[in-house]
Amino acid sequence: MNYPNGKKATNPSAINRSKNVLNTYGNRGMTLENEIVETNKFYLETNIAVIHKKPTPIQVVQVDYPKRSAATIKEAYYRRPSTTDFNGLYKGRYVDFEAKETNNKTSLPFSNIHEHQVEHMRRVDQHGGICFFIIRFKPLNETFLLPIRPFIRAWDTEFDGKRKSLPYNFIKDNGFEIPFRLQAKVDYIKVIEKVYINGGD
Amino acid sequence: MNYPNGKKATNPSAINRSKNVLNTYGNRGMTLENEIVETNKFYLETNIAVIHKKPTPIQVVQVDYPKRSAATIKEAYYRRPSTTDFNGLYKGRYVDFEAKETNNKTSLPFSNIHEHQVEHMRRVDQHGGICFFIIRFKPLNETFLLPIRPFIRAWDTEFDGKRKSLPYNFIKDNGFEIPFRLQAKVDYIKVIEKVYINGGD
Repeated sequence: MNYPNGKKATNPSAINRSKNVLNTYGNRGMTLENEIVETNKFYLETNIAVIHKKPTPIQVVQVDYPKRSAATIKEAYYRRPSTTDFNGLYKGRYVDFEAKETNNKTSLPFSNIHEHQVEHMRRVDQHGGICFFIIRFKPLNETFLLPIRPFIRAWDTEFDGKRKSLPYNFIKDNGFEIPFRLQAKVDYIKVIEKVYINGGD
Repeated sequence: MNYPNGKKATNPSAINRSKNVLNTYGNRGMTLENEIVETNKFYLETNIAVIHKKPTPIQVVQVDYPKRSAATIKEAYYRRPSTTDFNGLYKGRYVDFEAKETNNKTSLPFSNIHEHQVEHMRRVDQHGGICFFIIRFKPLNETFLLPIRPFIRAWDTEFDGKRKSLPYNFIKDNGFEIPFRLQAKVDYIKVIEKVYINGGD
């Protein structure tokens, strides 16, 4: 297992990712999250969609206000997000999703999906938003868009029971593989267009 | 002018607000931002809309990872937000807005509206989102929803010129007063319903 290099990071999402890498993932190449951030930038610049990553929620405990310079946060902690990482709009529709990647080949562990996030996504779906997971199986180099509805069915029936992960075959059968493009490495708008816009809801 | 009490705050938005209070505002009663957060909670619990405040963006510089306990952020700074404070969905539509309050009676200063935010809001409007400012004149106890389009017209023609603020009369003429309800102190969904949903776009 590779450890991320350096404890000193210059942006919160990088640090958050580092923690995840330490906990669950290997450290090869660009993370799914960063590829999505780049893809969103491409969508924004080419006027395709307006989708942003939300800032990492941080609980601030102590702040210094030195004269004539910026307030310095001296003590703070990462909080567990109560919603998802990404939201925005495409063709007037509200879009909301969470990205997860795993080194596993056969399933996505439920362990790093928080119940609050699932409740949020359930609400988004009920209110007519476009809501899904982007899931990458790193050893297979395959990335899927999994709509929230099949996910919720699996979560509701299996989470309180025995199963603690979502099988690869379930994701493949109920999801849609996301194509790779050089400028849009995780070109999920292509799938949204096909599944939600052209294909009805 | 009243100073906010205490430099030690337990959540980032409270601190952010304190800074604003110090800079621009008096400190009487609940802030507009907090009233909107409470209103959103009511909308969520009564299943009316799903709208959240985004976390305050923070630039993390140094983090400690003590063994067996949570990562502690030791040095960090508030960043200027590149989007707006609030977004979410109502009846399937994407909703995006920024809240501003002033102690002024005759105009809202442009000084605390950032150009990046305006560019973001312009894009949201172009992509079919519902986008507006919520503006409170505290001495008048009046709160308005000002749609982004009249705002943009004023901003584009007057920002680079001489005017450095938006007159109260302009906001009153182009905006919609937001009614007060006990459970929804800033009941902006009422206005969205009237202006954007029933009234067309």
